[in-house]
Amino acid sequence: MIVDFRGRPPTPEYLTYFGPDRTRWIGERVGARSMSQAFLEGSLELFFEEMNEAGIDYTVALGRNSPEMLLGERRFPAGIIPNKHVLVLQTRYPDRVVGMAGVDVSNQIHDAVAEIDEFVGQCGLKGVFVEPQRALPGQPDDAAVMPVYEKCLEYGVPVSIMSGPFAGPDIGYTDPRHIDAVATRYPDLNIIAGHGAWPYVTEIIAVAFKHPNVYVSPDIYHFVPGSEGYVTAANGFMADQLLFGTAYPIRPLKQTVEDFKALPFEPDALTKALGLNAQRLLGL
Amino acid sequence: MIVDFRGRPPTPEYLTYFGPDRTRWIGERVGARSMSQAFLEGSLELFFEEMNEAGIDYTVALGRNSPEMLLGERRFPAGIIPNKHVLVLQTRYPDRVVGMAGVDVSNQIHDAVAEIDEFVGQCGLKGVFVEPQRALPGQPDDAAVMPVYEKCLEYGVPVSIMSGPFAGPDIGYTDPRHIDAVATRYPDLNIIAGHGAWPYVTEIIAVAFKHPNVYVSPDIYHFVPGSEGYVTAANGFMADQLLFGTAYPIRPLKQTVEDFKALPFEPDALTKALGLNAQRLLGL
Amino acid sequence: MIVDFRGRPPTPEYLTYFGPDRTRWIGERVGARSMSQAFLEGSLELFFEEMNEAGIDYTVALGRNSPEMLLGERRFPAGIIPNKHVLVLQTRYPDRVVGMAGVDVSNQIHDAVAEIDEFVGQCGLKGVFVEPQRALPGQPDDAAVMPVYEKCLEYGVPVSIMSGPFAGPDIGYTDPRHIDAVATRYPDLNIIAGHGAWPYVTEIIAVAFKHPNVYVSPDIYHFVPGSEGYVTAANGFMADQLLFGTAYPIRPLKQTVEDFKALPFEPDALTKALGLNAQRLLGL
Repeated sequence: MIVDFRGRPPTPEYLTYFGPDRTRWIGERVGARSMSQAFLEGSLELFFEEMNEAGIDYTVALGRNSPEMLLGERRFPAGIIPNKHVLVLQTRYPDRVVGMAGVDVSNQIHDAVAEIDEFVGQCGLKGVFVEPQRALPGQPDDAAVMPVYEKCLEYGVPVSIMSGPFAGPDIGYTDPRHIDAVATRYPDLNIIAGHGAWPYVTEIIAVAFKHPNVYVSPDIYHFVPGSEGYVTAANGFMADQLLFGTAYPIRPLKQTVEDFKALPFEPDALTKALGLNAQRLLGL
Repeated sequence: MIVDFRGRPPTPEYLTYFGPDRTRWIGERVGARSMSQAFLEGSLELFFEEMNEAGIDYTVALGRNSPEMLLGERRFPAGIIPNKHVLVLQTRYPDRVVGMAGVDVSNQIHDAVAEIDEFVGQCGLKGVFVEPQRALPGQPDDAAVMPVYEKCLEYGVPVSIMSGPFAGPDIGYTDPRHIDAVATRYPDLNIIAGHGAWPYVTEIIAVAFKHPNVYVSPDIYHFVPGSEGYVTAANGFMADQLLFGTAYPIRPLKQTVEDFKALPFEPDALTKALGLNAQRLLGL
Repeated sequence: MIVDFRGRPPTPEYLTYFGPDRTRWIGERVGARSMSQAFLEGSLELFFEEMNEAGIDYTVALGRNSPEMLLGERRFPAGIIPNKHVLVLQTRYPDRVVGMAGVDVSNQIHDAVAEIDEFVGQCGLKGVFVEPQRALPGQPDDAAVMPVYEKCLEYGVPVSIMSGPFAGPDIGYTDPRHIDAVATRYPDLNIIAGHGAWPYVTEIIAVAFKHPNVYVSPDIYHFVPGSEGYVTAANGFMADQLLFGTAYPIRPLKQTVEDFKALPFEPDALTKALGLNAQRLLGL
């Protein structure tokens, strides 16, 4: 079983967010040797074929409701992938797509708690995605995010927290000390560090060391300098806490599965990272 | 000569702080293959036998006087290992135990300076241990800690500062920039970063690079991802500044000495780290 | 073509700043096997001979106008290398020396913007060097520095920001998140992280990952623990963004070129790092 913990099916809704130029530019920087044909054609059918070729069973599709962010005097536009769309994908393709609701913790786009009640509580999306670094901008342990975590606990679903170098106004917004604080406060909440909090690799590993409820999903950041620790940790205490992901369309599916398998994983650690951990976490 | 810079003799006083379940859990995460029989039986005699088997000459026993800490809405209980007990151990076993006084820099449990006057100045404990991240909670360069550093200078003893991922409310409390500030302010004060400030490995190495008076004792954190730099540094400029430790009972003595010797140390660096540096620092 | 992005010609002006004792001490910690004879003799002629022996075409000489800094209760003296002196060097030796103007962003020593107008705008120095961590002390994204960046943009010259473990009161002042903020705000400004922001290696690599306009010049910090990522990154996405430097007189020229060439660079990456990137950046 292989679960891609961060895929974005090439529907019009996702394609408004991921344009070809920027996708290609970042892709090249993380070693992508080609661009997905399914992405270039915007074909969901072809995407499922590429999943088959790569051996990926499920893709985790995140909704996104992140308001505009100011960077100095520049504006970074809002990122919107409606949860309704994610729900349509999960409902139509229950054997391929697992949906998580993207919520705006600043409550500008909607009421975050009501959005979770609707899309997780009533409609059955399987988790929640937040990016407080962009919505507030603030850190994951900002008081404004606590009601969201408590809702996740109430529904028994994991929360994926945007991490990685593009989270928020500068890389400091992905400093894992704030995820540590959340995990300490809510020891029963399953937390996923999406993009693996790179460049703070040893730091997020330390947070996972302290908290069995913290999952790390470095996806494309397995293929940049300083990332060796993710695999070393998964071969040791972090075996049950690493999650495979492609960040498709940034990296193509088949190449990423192959490159991931070529990392120096021990066999058990690899099987868990590719799918077993995600299966358990999402109840697949 | 081998000096264990962080051991905890299995007396009733230490055993109230280190319970078997948590000790086993952390131990497994840092590669312990067994638990010490001396620890399980609470036998000091057996502990000295285990020291012999491991080839350890001295164990450094720290007092601890750390008040309760709030983590979000949860309480982390006070940690008390009375300095009187440490003094008893050092007095009874002067050839095996070196004691350092644990002081509460928040002055809730006692007056920190008076405690040093009594246990270091009058009774002869060989150093001071502080954990401002838990007592205040604050950083090692918080103004409240300065009188403690000045007392250490007055008595010519080193200060061991709690560092490592469990120091304080989140990992950010072990960020070595604050140790840097202390070392800059007091260039004649010998400072030990206990637990080696992991996960901030390159950072604490940089602080040791700047300050010959900063010592690094990673103990169990030699055996987690991202720790390679400790050994590389000790093979270079940090040769006189690395200190061996076991963090017993978390890791058993014999295995830890063996695992430490198996790290890629150059012969001179190994001899210094195992004992010569500690011998010089503690005046053994 | 080899460009040394941080050299200090051994003129009386530079020698007031770099004394032999401290230079030797730091040099040994970064693996220097000898001290430059040109430095010991204060001979510019011999310096150019050492450049020839090392195969270095150009040395980048920085002016420095940094006021006194308080570290706790200790004073770190002002560092002054007048831009007039740097201009003399560049004018007399246009085939060997490229000068950059050092400006005081706190406007205590001079008016920073007027200094750039004079030495870059009118006199033709090729860039600007700042150390806000010492002048303010503050971070590179402090509002006080923005007029300097805007002047650099106006004149189309790069800005070199002091980074590395000795930048400012403690290592936290070299945390690259602040360079990230500047690079985000001014995407057309070429920024050089002088000393490579060590120990924050993966972090500065992440900033360079985000911003093609961020250049990294680790100089002596290629030869300390935790620095492997610089080379790995230069073999990948950072090929056009790494800059060779010696930090002469801390490391001798010839040994440093040889040691740099012995790092595991791919051939193209090495050629670019040694000189092509600097040539393009400085318009040589």
